[in-house]
Amino acid sequence: MTLANSAIWGVGTSAFGKQTSLGGPRLAWQATVEALDDAGLAAGDIEAVYAGTVFGDPGTVTRSLQQIGIVEVPVVTIENACASGTTAFHEARLAVDTGRYERVLAFGIETMTAHFDGAISPIASDPDGAQGFAMPSIYGMSATRYQHEFGTTPEQMASVAVKNRGHAVGNPRAQHRKAVTLEQVLGSRLVADPITLFQCCSIADAAAAAVIGPRRGSPEPAGEVVIRSSALRSGRLWDHTTDKVWGWDIVADTAAGAYEAAGVGPGDIEVFEVHDAFTIGEIITTEALGLCGLGEGGPLVASGHTTLGGAQPVNPSGGLLSRGHPLGATGLAQIAEIVWQLRGQAGDRQVPGARLGAVETMGGGTAGIDGNACVVTVLEGPGARS
Amino acid sequence: MTLANSAIWGVGTSAFGKQTSLGGPRLAWQATVEALDDAGLAAGDIEAVYAGTVFGDPGTVTRSLQQIGIVEVPVVTIENACASGTTAFHEARLAVDTGRYERVLAFGIETMTAHFDGAISPIASDPDGAQGFAMPSIYGMSATRYQHEFGTTPEQMASVAVKNRGHAVGNPRAQHRKAVTLEQVLGSRLVADPITLFQCCSIADAAAAAVIGPRRGSPEPAGEVVIRSSALRSGRLWDHTTDKVWGWDIVADTAAGAYEAAGVGPGDIEVFEVHDAFTIGEIITTEALGLCGLGEGGPLVASGHTTLGGAQPVNPSGGLLSRGHPLGATGLAQIAEIVWQLRGQAGDRQVPGARLGAVETMGGGTAGIDGNACVVTVLEGPGARS
Repeated sequence: MTLANSAIWGVGTSAFGKQTSLGGPRLAWQATVEALDDAGLAAGDIEAVYAGTVFGDPGTVTRSLQQIGIVEVPVVTIENACASGTTAFHEARLAVDTGRYERVLAFGIETMTAHFDGAISPIASDPDGAQGFAMPSIYGMSATRYQHEFGTTPEQMASVAVKNRGHAVGNPRAQHRKAVTLEQVLGSRLVADPITLFQCCSIADAAAAAVIGPRRGSPEPAGEVVIRSSALRSGRLWDHTTDKVWGWDIVADTAAGAYEAAGVGPGDIEVFEVHDAFTIGEIITTEALGLCGLGEGGPLVASGHTTLGGAQPVNPSGGLLSRGHPLGATGLAQIAEIVWQLRGQAGDRQVPGARLGAVETMGGGTAGIDGNACVVTVLEGPGARS
Repeated sequence: MTLANSAIWGVGTSAFGKQTSLGGPRLAWQATVEALDDAGLAAGDIEAVYAGTVFGDPGTVTRSLQQIGIVEVPVVTIENACASGTTAFHEARLAVDTGRYERVLAFGIETMTAHFDGAISPIASDPDGAQGFAMPSIYGMSATRYQHEFGTTPEQMASVAVKNRGHAVGNPRAQHRKAVTLEQVLGSRLVADPITLFQCCSIADAAAAAVIGPRRGSPEPAGEVVIRSSALRSGRLWDHTTDKVWGWDIVADTAAGAYEAAGVGPGDIEVFEVHDAFTIGEIITTEALGLCGLGEGGPLVASGHTTLGGAQPVNPSGGLLSRGHPLGATGLAQIAEIVWQLRGQAGDRQVPGARLGAVETMGGGTAGIDGNACVVTVLEGPGARS
């Protein structure tokens, strides 16, 4: 089934960071009201909601939305690890594409700083994490193998953080908005050899939202962003026994599905937001997305190809490394960034003239790293149709 | 959008009860393998999964399914309070009806006995519950009002438990399979005046599943159960300020939507599974579903109308009062019961010749009883088409 009938009518996000005192409902309000205003809709226009949250208590989402006036409509709250927000987006988009609804809110929220302490993923406290099998260690093992197998250097890895933190200088909603140097990244505290602190995303409190509806046709509203495709895959038991490192295959498979449905190749995409929870993650992901070959992700980032001003900027928002990673909100913040980029509204971090963008989010990997989830979506801005 | 293109190809459940040592993956295996066998499919045939769980840790569902061999396909895990399982069913059904997939697993799981102590809902331990605003109290207030306003008697309320526990004598998978008398129900320990212990559902460990696909046409397989309709609604802030008691309106609204989409009225339905978490809940629900008028639910159950052998049996499985209420699994266990009833496979609890059945699940209501969720589905057995 190939469809591209739906469009993003509006997006919104809260700021990202430690905002413990604001609380979930306030963050939800900020993101949702901005998205509704952007779409030119009122709360009462929304026909259904798909929401992503991982650590939210039962009822978190419905209570947050009711205060805004989104009531009596179907609300489906989804947990899909780090990909929860983009899974909600994917389901919302297909609910529109298949004619179930005409005005759907995709929403994501996570409040973490009140519950978790420190800059590293709370997954570190689960049973596997307690044995050292936490996310930083998993990525640390990938990084070690890349250094051995492909000669990826510590400097190449660190250049992901330098690039993304540099991009975030232009993103007023990012948590970390100061540029950092290679020396600062490499000199920060070691977390999971060879990954240092500045190569890990922080936790955060945030919400993000997108309003999705049918394409509005000709003359289309200024700024209409069309959803060319989206794909959702789950991994398999023992994903970590692949010939590649953990996560490579599922990102490549999901991207292949999204590219095929959109009728594009990776070379056609002009701006990406990808899951850079750790620096090595972005290196692996750019390979799996087809921006370069296996093992070439280190040289790619070091070359400037994926920096603002390069041929295919990756994470112009600053990515997870700068926003932080409030799990349910992350995917929809990535979507919002690409929408702003494709409309030419990204200010100091604008990729000039970007017409096609893509978002990739990968989740899962705890509990013996059994399986993952991944979403890739391809979005088309008005520039591609003018 | 009115569609009735999908059918339930197979169902399965684990037993229901305290099965702490079995663990989630084993329960998932029992339910899913039974459903796949019933559908005549292998694990590798499943194209997507919609799953319901409330208290499951992130990754619970994907890990459970991967051991069965359901891998690499989209898995969407939904939390919608007590209605999580039927919300997963509703989304799975619409994914088939709209042509997204042809073989979808709807799945629900909850393991509670290892985490919660006692027979009463774990919601009692949330912040509202700690102030006494737990589910038994909310239902206790409804019961008190019904006694005042409509003259509903303690005996009428208790007769719901007598009926459902009596039904469960014929259900080998129920947790409580011994019949109880009015005196035993009324004489059991007081939980939330006027609700006694035997009028409250227990917690439980269980899983349940249904395989959904397109209608297979003529000649249709023996036992094809068609999904005539399903409806999902969420409540609104201050649902408890309605003129009716808490929950009445949303059940009535959701049922109206499901009946209209199916082209039936409540009088056409020959067997129901409904959300009897507490006895007063079933009384209110039978009214809201249209089996009788407002305030007439007490006399209705006392009359035998909803008992096996009566005109419209309600909860022939024994309901939540007999199975217990493992939140994510409950809705799909209700679906499984109606499928067995419509195929004539319900053994000692069979409603003779039942051709149309309905399932109702209501969730939510914690945290200041802000809002609810409700799903109603209408199912048609092969007898209705022969």
